[in-house]
Amino acid sequence: MKITNLYTAAGFGDVSHKSLLVHDSPYFKVLNFNFRPGQGLPVHSHDLEGQVSIVVLEGEGEFRARDDARLPARKGDVLVCDIAEPHGVIATSEMRVLVTIAPPI
Amino acid sequence: MKITNLYTAAGFGDVSHKSLLVHDSPYFKVLNFNFRPGQGLPVHSHDLEGQVSIVVLEGEGEFRARDDARLPARKGDVLVCDIAEPHGVIATSEMRVLVTIAPPI
Repeated sequence: MKITNLYTAAGFGDVSHKSLLVHDSPYFKVLNFNFRPGQGLPVHSHDLEGQVSIVVLEGEGEFRARDDARLPARKGDVLVCDIAEPHGVIATSEMRVLVTIAPPI
Repeated sequence: MKITNLYTAAGFGDVSHKSLLVHDSPYFKVLNFNFRPGQGLPVHSHDLEGQVSIVVLEGEGEFRARDDARLPARKGDVLVCDIAEPHGVIATSEMRVLVTIAPPI
């Protein structure tokens, strides 16, 4: 059993976002990303089996999807999609997200 | 791609906690639980392969573990453990948690 506190473990960065590998195992990978406004994960995808969840812990921004689609990303939102489907997130405020990838890549 | 907002999807219950199945697939299962003080998930385990994460989105309480161990559960905490390892969580305030199980059980 392992407990990590995301609010004390990782801060924010002006030059680029801060990230923290919370957990990696054969079952899933868990990552925390903290973004300042304008920072984020550009739309990307991997030609692999599996799914990803992105949980907005704090702040807001936009999820990015196929064909440059933009969807509001608010505190408490959970996005789930295939790893092979284009996905991303860009912050418009200070934003903390938790990403889970199963199986890990 | 599917987006669920946990703050609008599920509330709290006086008689028992409220839960929401956010996602279920061959890769992982994602569940939201909202607890009032005293509510929670008692210590339990399953004799199965896999791991579980419990993220505290709001509020506080205690994680419960083997041998009745109690550990503080605060906003931003992420607990990860084997499904076969005893684990639980009890709220001491209104508390929102997100549970991810991989592979799903």
